This record gives sequence, C-alpha cells and structure tokens, in this order.
Amino acid sequence: MKKIDLLTPREIRLLIRKGKWDRPTPGLAMGFAQANLVVLPQKYAFDFLLFCQRNPKPCPLLEVLEPGQYQTRSLATDADIRTDIPRYNIYRRGKLESIETDIRKIWQDDFVTFLLGCSFSFEEALMRAKVPVRHIEENRNVPMYITNIPCKSAGIFHGPMVVSMRPLPPDKVVRAVQITSRFASVHGAPVHVGDPSAIGVRELAKPDFGKSVTVRQVEIPVFWACGVTPQAVVMEAKPDLCITHAPGHMFISDVLNEELATL
Amino acid sequence: MKKIDLLTPREIRLLIRKGKWDRPTPGLAMGFAQANLVVLPQKYAFDFLLFCQRNPKPCPLLEVLEPGQYQTRSLATDADIRTDIPRYNIYRRGKLESIETDIRKIWQDDFVTFLLGCSFSFEEALMRAKVPVRHIEENRNVPMYITNIPCKSAGIFHGPMVVSMRPLPPDKVVRAVQITSRFASVHGAPVHVGDPSAIGVRELAKPDFGKSVTVRQVEIPVFWACGVTPQAVVMEAKPDLCITHAPGHMFISDVLNEELATL
Repeated sequence: MKKIDLLTPREIRLLIRKGKWDRPTPGLAMGFAQANLVVLPQKYAFDFLLFCQRNPKPCPLLEVLEPGQYQTRSLATDADIRTDIPRYNIYRRGKLESIETDIRKIWQDDFVTFLLGCSFSFEEALMRAKVPVRHIEENRNVPMYITNIPCKSAGIFHGPMVVSMRPLPPDKVVRAVQITSRFASVHGAPVHVGDPSAIGVRELAKPDFGKSVTVRQVEIPVFWACGVTPQAVVMEAKPDLCITHAPGHMFISDVLNEELATL
Repeated sequence: MKKIDLLTPREIRLLIRKGKWDRPTPGLAMGFAQANLVVLPQKYAFDFLLFCQRNPKPCPLLEVLEPGQYQTRSLATDADIRTDIPRYNIYRRGKLESIETDIRKIWQDDFVTFLLGCSFSFEEALMRAKVPVRHIEENRNVPMYITNIPCKSAGIFHGPMVVSMRPLPPDKVVRAVQITSRFASVHGAPVHVGDPSAIGVRELAKPDFGKSVTVRQVEIPVFWACGVTPQAVVMEAKPDLCITHAPGHMFISDVLNEELATL
C-alpha cells in the first residue's frame, strides 16, 4: 500500500469507506479541497440554505445535495457521504449523542447534505506565498473566538460569527488579504484586521475553541470567518437531528484548491 | 419635483409605489444596483434556492426573503416588494396571465421573494473604463441567446443557460474580463469568449431574446451568463404561480454597484 499522504482523494475515500482510516484528515491529499459536513432533515433545509446564502463568509457552500441524495455530483465522483468521512458527530436536539464511522444505518430519505468550504484550502495558498501560518508552525489547532459580529438570521438559525485568528507580521497582511480574497468559497478575505476588542474578542490567549498560538510583539492579529460558525448555529437551534463531521475529520474532495479560486 | 434621473433610489421607489412611475428603470438612480425579481410559493422555494446556489453565474442571489416577508433587509430599507417595482408579470403554470403594477391583492403568506443581480451593474463599470457596450451605444436591448451549456438542475428546475453578448475590440477583452470578474454577484466574468458555435449559438444576428447589435469585422463576441436564465427555467418548470418583474422594470436598491464588487 502506498503511504497515506501519497494517495489520491478517491483512494483515501475508499480507505475511509472500508473502515481503514478514521483519523483526522489535515495533510492528506495536499492540493485538494476538504469540506465541512452538515446533514439536516428536509424540514430545516430551506432555513439552513438561506442562512448560508445570507452569511457566505462563515458558511461558504461548496455543494448541496437534494433530499435523500448521498452521492456528491460536483465535489467528487463515486463519493458516498454516508461512509466516506472518517468520523461523524450525531447530535439530537443540539446534544452530541454519539460518534460514528458510518451513518448508513441512520440515513433517512429526507436528509439534506451541505458541504461547506474549509480554511485548509487558503492556508495552503498562504504558505505557498511564504505567509506564515502560526498554528501550523506550532503544530496545533487554529485558535477560534466567538465575536460580537451577528450573523444574519434565517428561520430558526441565528447566532454570532465565530472567527479563526492568524497573527501576521505587518508586511504580510496585504498579501494575506489578496490571497484569501481569491478564495471566496473557503471563507474568503478576513473579516477584521487589528483590534480584537473591536469584534468582541477579549483575550487572544483564551480562544473559545482550538488552542492559542504565539503572537509576537510586532504582529497583527488577522481574523477570518470560521466554519465552526454554522455548526455552532445549528447546535444552538437544536434541531431534532443533525449530523456533522467530527472536528478535523473532513470530507476529501476531487476538486483542487486552485479550482476554487476566483481571479 | 426633481427630474426622475436625479432622484435617490428611495425617492424613485416611493414614486413607483404611488403609481407615478410604471416605465422601465435603466438609467435611473445611476450607480445603484438594480435587481431581478422572482416570487414563488414556499413549496418551490428550496428547489429554486438550490438551483441558484448551483448556478451562481446565471442566478446570482442578492437577497432572499423569508416566507411571507415583503420588506427587504439588506438591499434597501423601507422597500415593499409588493408595490415598489414598476411592473410585475404574473405567470400561472408557466403562462403569462397578467401584468400588474401592484401585487398586494394577490400576495400570499407563503410567497418567497428572490432578488437577483442584473448586468446593469457591471455595464456601468465597463463604460467607466472605456470598454464599449454596443447595445447601449445603439440604444437597444442586449442580444441574448439560448446556449447548449446546461445549468445544473435542482428539483423541478432545469434548462440551458441563456447568455447575453457584447462584441469587443480585441484590445478590450482582457479589461472586460478583469472588470466583470469583480462583480460575481451580478453574473461575474464571461462564460465564453470567441466562437459562438462552441456554446450552441448559430447566428449572432438572430438572438433568441432582445435585439441584435453591430459586430464589426475585428471584434470578438464575449458572452456573459444572463438573468433571463432563471426566468426561463422557472417558466419551463410551470409552477402553479410565479411573479417576476416585467423585463426592464427592475427593483432599484440602495446598494451601490461598487459595494457589490469584490477585490
């Protein structure tokens, strides 16, 4: 067998489907986009789709499947949403009930699948341009903060935007804005540069999710809308049932990050 | 009273609401975005929203209102979708039944309103950069063609992409691509440059909608996804009821075209 990080997206999805890989996906299939998963019963689907339409920065839709469909059409061929993700979180009324590696047994004909962009895509582009990505340098999860920026509500879905933070040397800020602006479908340009308190972030050293990273004296904290937002919003709305990927255990697509870029 | 083309978007919407303006809107409130209208009963709303999500170039969503809502939140304040558009087309089962200037009497609590971007926004940007817009020079409606490019279907909605064509001198093509790429929410970059037959367009002189324009010997036809696509697709799907603006009689928003631009 080839080393896992040399496998194609399709080969990795097959390993996952066969139960031979249930670990996190960062670093796998470099160059290819990975996606966040949200599965909801159809009665919530219009409201959630509308929430994503109204909040494209935290909720950038890469693909939405029709009710009952579990095979992607544009992100990958031969992918099965029920088996091709290493770990699934099953939430009932907003509470984590179980973690599964296969959801075929609980699949329902009215499930609607949403696949959302993930910042892994733009981090790869940043690093290629020598823009430092601190949490990768320090080998930890990105620090994330609940802000005072309200999302636009839609039906039962509402809540504050969650952001991720990457500290940058001042001479890299412009380049980072330019690069991530090209990636609108994976959170796009930053939502804030500079003063954390302006967006309701009190202490950079105490993130709400993930781990804090070193911020050097001269560095400027740069904040991007974060894919934790839709999950936090869905959990808060407490639908009967919601299935997501487990954090870090993403869907690996056949689409190159560069194919997602505009301009 | 001020000359109509000096009025603000809000002043023009009030005139329209009072029944004092029922004519086309091009040239009014220059600098401000105008929008296409599609109103559908809620049972069709998820499928249509999904269709737009899957086909962002022909169907760029500017704002979607929740079921029953008729006041916009982000495109304008104080706007009433039922009265603030000069003319409405009322379709039943895909057939034009009547043209109205006010839809309050037929409004239903389950109506969902979609407002979609319109190429007027990027045409203004093209002209400011000295890129010629032939149909405006020749004072006629833009030529539009049904292509062989399939839209991605969603539920009952499917059909070919309709494009508009603007002939350009070769030295203006790059600039036109750059400028319109900035306007993703109003159709964005061209879908095709050059050979009409490659996208199923047989004769430039015989558009399917609008009027033909002069294409000079050296000029290159450039094709953009067109807002007629969602209307053609909805008519083809024959929903019980659908309300749209009458062609050229758009919703005038408080949002500047420049606010819609990315980068």
